[in-house]
Amino acid sequence: MSEKMFGRVALIGIGLIGSSLARALRRDSPETEIIACARRGETLAAVQRLGIADATNHDPAQAAAGADLVVVATPLSAYAEIGERIAPMLKDGAILSDVGSVKQAVIRDLQPHVPREVHFVPGHPVAGTEHSGPESGFAELFRDRWCILTPPPETASEPVTAVGRMWESFGMHVVTMSADHHDKVLAMTSHLPHLIAYTIVGTATNLEESLKSEVIEFSASGFRDFTRIAASDPVMWRDIFLNNREAVLEIVQRFTEDLTALQRAIRWGEGDKLQELFTRTRAIRRSIIEAKQA
Amino acid sequence: MSEKMFGRVALIGIGLIGSSLARALRRDSPETEIIACARRGETLAAVQRLGIADATNHDPAQAAAGADLVVVATPLSAYAEIGERIAPMLKDGAILSDVGSVKQAVIRDLQPHVPREVHFVPGHPVAGTEHSGPESGFAELFRDRWCILTPPPETASEPVTAVGRMWESFGMHVVTMSADHHDKVLAMTSHLPHLIAYTIVGTATNLEESLKSEVIEFSASGFRDFTRIAASDPVMWRDIFLNNREAVLEIVQRFTEDLTALQRAIRWGEGDKLQELFTRTRAIRRSIIEAKQA
Repeated sequence: MSEKMFGRVALIGIGLIGSSLARALRRDSPETEIIACARRGETLAAVQRLGIADATNHDPAQAAAGADLVVVATPLSAYAEIGERIAPMLKDGAILSDVGSVKQAVIRDLQPHVPREVHFVPGHPVAGTEHSGPESGFAELFRDRWCILTPPPETASEPVTAVGRMWESFGMHVVTMSADHHDKVLAMTSHLPHLIAYTIVGTATNLEESLKSEVIEFSASGFRDFTRIAASDPVMWRDIFLNNREAVLEIVQRFTEDLTALQRAIRWGEGDKLQELFTRTRAIRRSIIEAKQA
Repeated sequence: MSEKMFGRVALIGIGLIGSSLARALRRDSPETEIIACARRGETLAAVQRLGIADATNHDPAQAAAGADLVVVATPLSAYAEIGERIAPMLKDGAILSDVGSVKQAVIRDLQPHVPREVHFVPGHPVAGTEHSGPESGFAELFRDRWCILTPPPETASEPVTAVGRMWESFGMHVVTMSADHHDKVLAMTSHLPHLIAYTIVGTATNLEESLKSEVIEFSASGFRDFTRIAASDPVMWRDIFLNNREAVLEIVQRFTEDLTALQRAIRWGEGDKLQELFTRTRAIRRSIIEAKQA
């Protein structure tokens, strides 16, 4: 975006996503004033060293005061307290948004605190890497990825458009859907894969010592990919599973049934069943490549 | 390798691995005569078009006749018949090797046919992509990957060294272990991850139509990685699961127990258990990066 989109943006939480947003704003909207907030002094020191914010503050209320756009980008477990603390400081007409990976829980935790004159636009830029912290961010993280906005029915359309336009200017494809639907889609595309990756890497760590060291040494492509996913931020993912519990448990149940069926096919030597599934899954990959997400 | 290592090499099966081996031989040992064998005329036509073999033959016995090194590189289900057919044509002093992902089954299917004067060196270059067929091969596929040789106790050491030296010249790190141990290590590092990836992509294809199309559209990093793995060759993987049944079922059982424990932790909101595991798995990733396999 060439025009200055927001005068002042407060980023509450400045890890991988928050710091990538700061960098993208810096690059494309240099006149926007960026306030970064983090609990730990170490994180704020890193932000200062990186020069990705105009000011830093460990207090979310002070950071949010006077901002045109406040983006919460902490692990989900901090949202309720942040909402309570920043609410009295939000200026009339401000937009409160976030980047959390679960949307019903975000609405549950933030909405009760949102003052009448503040616009609430929950959002989820579906982008990330296995790295975390402000050093790991980069402005191009959002390029060609989806951003899902889940505004409650009460939110006016202009602020939704404004937030969407910001993400679009960073290369994202912005869509709007209900928080409930978002949580189901992400349970399948992101939360279950991460749970499985964490599980399989955990299974490997529980092997007898001799086998375990060789598993690490000879880790073939399959396992190596899983370990990358399973290196994602532990607190962020703990919070995702606890806050999207129902959708995740529902999809884990389906997955377990399907795995049990495959297990049975292997035990009984039913090669045709295996081959049929493996042929179907190959086709899905093609669909994804066609949808340009691969 | 600058010297001509083998006078004539017969590749029985010329898919991703076989054709990559042909390309690597062509590049590094141009005087070696390469005979490619495939069941389908279409595959042989592709090999001729690509110019990666000196001769092609649909009959494994004729292809193997007079070769100094015969490498079986078909799906595992074809091994027993190939062994039976090529055995009478193998010349004295020839080396019979292969690239199969399961080693006990290979020994079970090939060894009974190996003539007394032929050296049997089962091998597994642990390299691959989700693509298959002779067009998908490339000489650099083997660079910096492991190659595991599992010679039976009866095999003399010189032919093992000769095969190992060939793979080393293509950039592989060659190790020797028992077939039984190989099958257990690979069940964890490669077979289980593939089974899980196939399962999860299958679970997604069984979703209600509206959710399914969005799962494809919004496929986030986790799911996208799994679809790549689940796009691997269906017949090859059917054969791997059927031929490493016991080791795979044992490790699936462990995985299922671990997943059930996580499922329970999510249901009961036991965040500390989740975070503890996720922190442990992150450390494993570091070990793998240190082992230079990432």
